[in-house]
Amino acid sequence: MTSLDLTVDVFDLTEQLVNIESVSGNEQVIADAVESQLRTLAHLEVSRYGNTVVARTHHGHAERVVIAGHIDTVPLNENLPARRDEKNLHGLGACDMKGGVAVALRVAATMPVTNRDITFVFYDCEEVEEYRNGLKLLGESHPELLEADFAILMEPSDAVVEAGCQGTLRVDVTTRGERAHSARSWNGVNAIHGAAAVLDRLTAYEPRRPVIDGLEYREGLNAVFVSGGVAGNVLPDSCTVSVNYRFAPDRSEAEAVAHMREVFDGFEIEVTDSAPGAMPGLGVPAAAAFVEAVGGTANPKFGWTDVARFSALGIPAVNFGPGDPLLAHKQEEFVPLEQLAQVEEQMRRWLAG
Amino acid sequence: MTSLDLTVDVFDLTEQLVNIESVSGNEQVIADAVESQLRTLAHLEVSRYGNTVVARTHHGHAERVVIAGHIDTVPLNENLPARRDEKNLHGLGACDMKGGVAVALRVAATMPVTNRDITFVFYDCEEVEEYRNGLKLLGESHPELLEADFAILMEPSDAVVEAGCQGTLRVDVTTRGERAHSARSWNGVNAIHGAAAVLDRLTAYEPRRPVIDGLEYREGLNAVFVSGGVAGNVLPDSCTVSVNYRFAPDRSEAEAVAHMREVFDGFEIEVTDSAPGAMPGLGVPAAAAFVEAVGGTANPKFGWTDVARFSALGIPAVNFGPGDPLLAHKQEEFVPLEQLAQVEEQMRRWLAG
Repeated sequence: MTSLDLTVDVFDLTEQLVNIESVSGNEQVIADAVESQLRTLAHLEVSRYGNTVVARTHHGHAERVVIAGHIDTVPLNENLPARRDEKNLHGLGACDMKGGVAVALRVAATMPVTNRDITFVFYDCEEVEEYRNGLKLLGESHPELLEADFAILMEPSDAVVEAGCQGTLRVDVTTRGERAHSARSWNGVNAIHGAAAVLDRLTAYEPRRPVIDGLEYREGLNAVFVSGGVAGNVLPDSCTVSVNYRFAPDRSEAEAVAHMREVFDGFEIEVTDSAPGAMPGLGVPAAAAFVEAVGGTANPKFGWTDVARFSALGIPAVNFGPGDPLLAHKQEEFVPLEQLAQVEEQMRRWLAG
Repeated sequence: MTSLDLTVDVFDLTEQLVNIESVSGNEQVIADAVESQLRTLAHLEVSRYGNTVVARTHHGHAERVVIAGHIDTVPLNENLPARRDEKNLHGLGACDMKGGVAVALRVAATMPVTNRDITFVFYDCEEVEEYRNGLKLLGESHPELLEADFAILMEPSDAVVEAGCQGTLRVDVTTRGERAHSARSWNGVNAIHGAAAVLDRLTAYEPRRPVIDGLEYREGLNAVFVSGGVAGNVLPDSCTVSVNYRFAPDRSEAEAVAHMREVFDGFEIEVTDSAPGAMPGLGVPAAAAFVEAVGGTANPKFGWTDVARFSALGIPAVNFGPGDPLLAHKQEEFVPLEQLAQVEEQMRRWLAG
């Protein structure tokens, strides 16, 4: 079995984790290593579901928090093994998110006593189709394991709390026309010309910037694809503009769809993708205490992450982890050693009995 | 050798021609049959270039006309063999343009004496890439064979003269932007949104309708393709609208391009395809006499045809043939027997010594 040593420092542990290749679908080796190490710790109750490992303390505290991280990475891109320089650890998954997983494992391994009960969740298949997502599957098969007052997803957030997340909706807006030879265009109706009105509405659109729990969420409404055309000498009878609406978490998916119907009133609309936002929930005592403990600063999260799954379960959740989120999925991803140390230190201080 | 009998009536001859399959690239059999039959006629000088057959009279008249037709068809579409009912002959190529070829062959075979000298041209590969076009190749290798005062292309025109043809130009109009994650769209510039202004100009455009030689040409400016997009969560950095401009023959290709630069001023433009129009040339005596002889009516031709090749050589040319041009390239194409008879009769009357 590939070995993992939880007694080394967070830098070495991150390096060990990066060097266990775990592209989505290939997490068995890393999950085995994590599980076997956690099972050696007397203060943890460990269970395994596929390649997802859950470890819980049972100190009897009134408060329980989930500390979660995915153990898979995007595909290899000539960026293994790990390489460390004076400031950073480089390699596949260093940023997204083996640095965060290393911090969580360090906390699990070295803090037998904590001031809150903890449920650690190390899950698979976050980087692929949603139906394979280990956290989603665990929430469906064993929802009781995710019960908590607060959740921390250790996704890269530059070591600053990112709260909530925006929802995302994709709709296809289609215009119809009537084909005709372009030499006799008066016999037809040009569907691409019809799409001018759709694009005009997009360019005229003013996105909302609602403030929720003190955080300003900037929405966005953007065409992400456009396509139409039959042949070089034919008036097209159909044109589709695919629109992505990123909406603040004060709006539900249904409200977002209703808003799109309003914006594109008079056009044919089809919803092709939808995911709800997550309220920051910073008003909840456990969340407020955490933000306070790690520096008092929280930013709104614009991109969609698994925190929305906790939100859907009624659990306030934040992203908090080492690494620049803009480096995620890039060949040159790395995690700053300073952030690894800082995040571990902040988590320790917050959980210290 | 597949036989062809030029002594039968125009209905039977059309049927024989339709039943010799001659999809572009496969014209050898029909060209052999046409050539061998024309070689039996003492009043014709016959020559062959690839699968293009040329036959000329040498009566010593002051005037020479070209009578031309292509012998290839678009691909088979379960529409062979020919089928005749009381009114129409159905089958691949019946309309486009074996009916017209049959009329030309009937004139060649049965009018040893005519009041004008005639150059018959039966050519291949009209329905495919321009570089293979038999008429184009003949004009390049033996331009002297196309010298004439007037040319008739026996393309389907519903038995009414269609004069000149419009030019056609295709340009790609491209807008540029800057990629960004759609959850943080303020960091980018959406190129599809930028295309709104391109489509707005298209919808606001008012096409010209110039009158030339008494014929009104209706221009057209149409988007025929639009494409843009990188991923469902990315602001696109490029969007291309392909525009087809059909321009009246009083405008040159260079003028048409200049006009596009004017219309899309401020945008990146690339010319992807261009073909000149052809002036109707009905003021030329030979052309005027022909129109008079076949009923006095002429319509403008909107679609591009090989008449433009004659125009480029300084030879006025018209389309005149049996069959509805809107049926060309359709599985159900047919030619009305009445039009076959009428066009043959009109050609005979015009050429009768």
